[in-house]
Amino acid sequence: MSSTFPSKIAVVGSGAVGSFYGGKLAHLGCDVHFLLRRDLETVRKNGLTLRTEHDAIHLPRVNAHGSTEDIGPCDVVIVAVKTTANRDLETLLPPLLREGTVLLTLQNGLGNEEFLAEHFGVERVVGGLCFVCLNRGEPGEILHFGHGSLSIGEFRGPPQARTQTLVEIFRQAGVETRLVENLITERWRKLVWNIPFNGLAIAAGKAAVDAVLADQGLRTLARNLMSEVIAAAGKLGHFIPPEFGDEQIARSFEMGAYRPSSLIDYEAGREVEVEAIWGEPYRRAVRGGVDCGRMETIYHLVKRLAATGLKP
Amino acid sequence: MSSTFPSKIAVVGSGAVGSFYGGKLAHLGCDVHFLLRRDLETVRKNGLTLRTEHDAIHLPRVNAHGSTEDIGPCDVVIVAVKTTANRDLETLLPPLLREGTVLLTLQNGLGNEEFLAEHFGVERVVGGLCFVCLNRGEPGEILHFGHGSLSIGEFRGPPQARTQTLVEIFRQAGVETRLVENLITERWRKLVWNIPFNGLAIAAGKAAVDAVLADQGLRTLARNLMSEVIAAAGKLGHFIPPEFGDEQIARSFEMGAYRPSSLIDYEAGREVEVEAIWGEPYRRAVRGGVDCGRMETIYHLVKRLAATGLKP
Repeated sequence: MSSTFPSKIAVVGSGAVGSFYGGKLAHLGCDVHFLLRRDLETVRKNGLTLRTEHDAIHLPRVNAHGSTEDIGPCDVVIVAVKTTANRDLETLLPPLLREGTVLLTLQNGLGNEEFLAEHFGVERVVGGLCFVCLNRGEPGEILHFGHGSLSIGEFRGPPQARTQTLVEIFRQAGVETRLVENLITERWRKLVWNIPFNGLAIAAGKAAVDAVLADQGLRTLARNLMSEVIAAAGKLGHFIPPEFGDEQIARSFEMGAYRPSSLIDYEAGREVEVEAIWGEPYRRAVRGGVDCGRMETIYHLVKRLAATGLKP
Repeated sequence: MSSTFPSKIAVVGSGAVGSFYGGKLAHLGCDVHFLLRRDLETVRKNGLTLRTEHDAIHLPRVNAHGSTEDIGPCDVVIVAVKTTANRDLETLLPPLLREGTVLLTLQNGLGNEEFLAEHFGVERVVGGLCFVCLNRGEPGEILHFGHGSLSIGEFRGPPQARTQTLVEIFRQAGVETRLVENLITERWRKLVWNIPFNGLAIAAGKAAVDAVLADQGLRTLARNLMSEVIAAAGKLGHFIPPEFGDEQIARSFEMGAYRPSSLIDYEAGREVEVEAIWGEPYRRAVRGGVDCGRMETIYHLVKRLAATGLKP
């Protein structure tokens, strides 16, 4: 591994997450290439801005591309498209690949590493979980409300040097980054919160976190959903201690009227990541032999609501 | 028992159900007294009309009252208020009671017989299940779309002569009526359909029966909810054969775009009978030691949606 690895990085899916983490690396001085669609011309002209409440990082010149052919082979590809667009990756990614190209998926939920492994080879795949509150602002502008840490791990096998290097680079770029031993366990831990709170936000009539917690029935249901997710993860070999559920409820009380990203998508009429957050975990739980009636109910309701909500 | 029993009948709650069945008895010639609120003056002036697609029964003169004091003691009280108004019965019913007065509740769901027994004595209580499609039309007018049968049974103990007499009178009035041996088992059987289809109608975004059946996920969920309800009933001593669920799904395909009564209430901003249809069955299932995550989820969601839907 050369000391300059990764010399060339692509960001596929330059929404809030891709632009934020890619922008951090570009700001550090990495050679980052963004695949853009809607905001291509604006970013070419004005660059990218990562704005917090108090300050902003402005990147006046970024490598903005309209196609992955235009970018060409890279050392690392940050995959940050919405999981509902995963099929597009089958044609988007090949021009970016050479031997040893690492695919770092920063996507939500379960099934994304498997998808990349199946199509592009398991040895390429690294996963990352983002703990960050972001929104898109004006074209070329990302609003950063808080947090920002990453947890990165190999999809399969023990950590490799390349993954440790990625962690180091993100840290140098100012991103609090952790190397995790069991990536999929981390994904399940995140789902312990996302399945109930993103789900009830939609199914309980556009309910922010505080509204779910204020309704005793919904709060109990959220906690019981957590227990189902923890039980499912455990059956599938991903141990999460039972008290983690109580910790997550306690943590949620500090969030106030936070609106989960799925609710924001739903209200805006955008696609909701139904399969990655509810469908795939539910199917794995069933395969694991877990009775998960609450996960089943919330999955089918969110799926239906998201599908009908998309209609004009 | 005299051959003229019941000589005087009160109908408390003269909505669609109370007016329909009370109207049938009045049409037969029984001495029926209706407690009315909203439509009191109209019914006093114009009487009651039970209208089907093809014909109508017009009762030009009915005994319409504004208070139960005005009605006085009766032989039979037909209780047809919405279950959400059960507390009102504590003051409404006493003026209607003498020794031997029978309370026939035609209300939905679970808990109504228990409520009446607790407040007015278990020996008075008889229950009836209505299988009928009704709507209110103009004031004093009930629209009858189909069916109309009744299943009547003792709340506690073997059938008594009074209950057999009630069955006979309804039959004479042209209502297909069945005497049932185990009333609460019948209530659970009705809930096998009502819990999923009334529940999903609200929780899945105002979905009529055909919409639930057309969505494979929701259809599976409805069927699995039925299994939970059947299991709960069984644990509580009310055996329902497992194939009853499949029969109910098959029957539902014949209903087309039928909108369950709870959905109609919900859309109209009226109170939904959340506790009778979902809350009480769920609590009994939990007490029976049944794992009923689907019932729990649908209960808490409907409760929340109905509560927020009532807000202006």
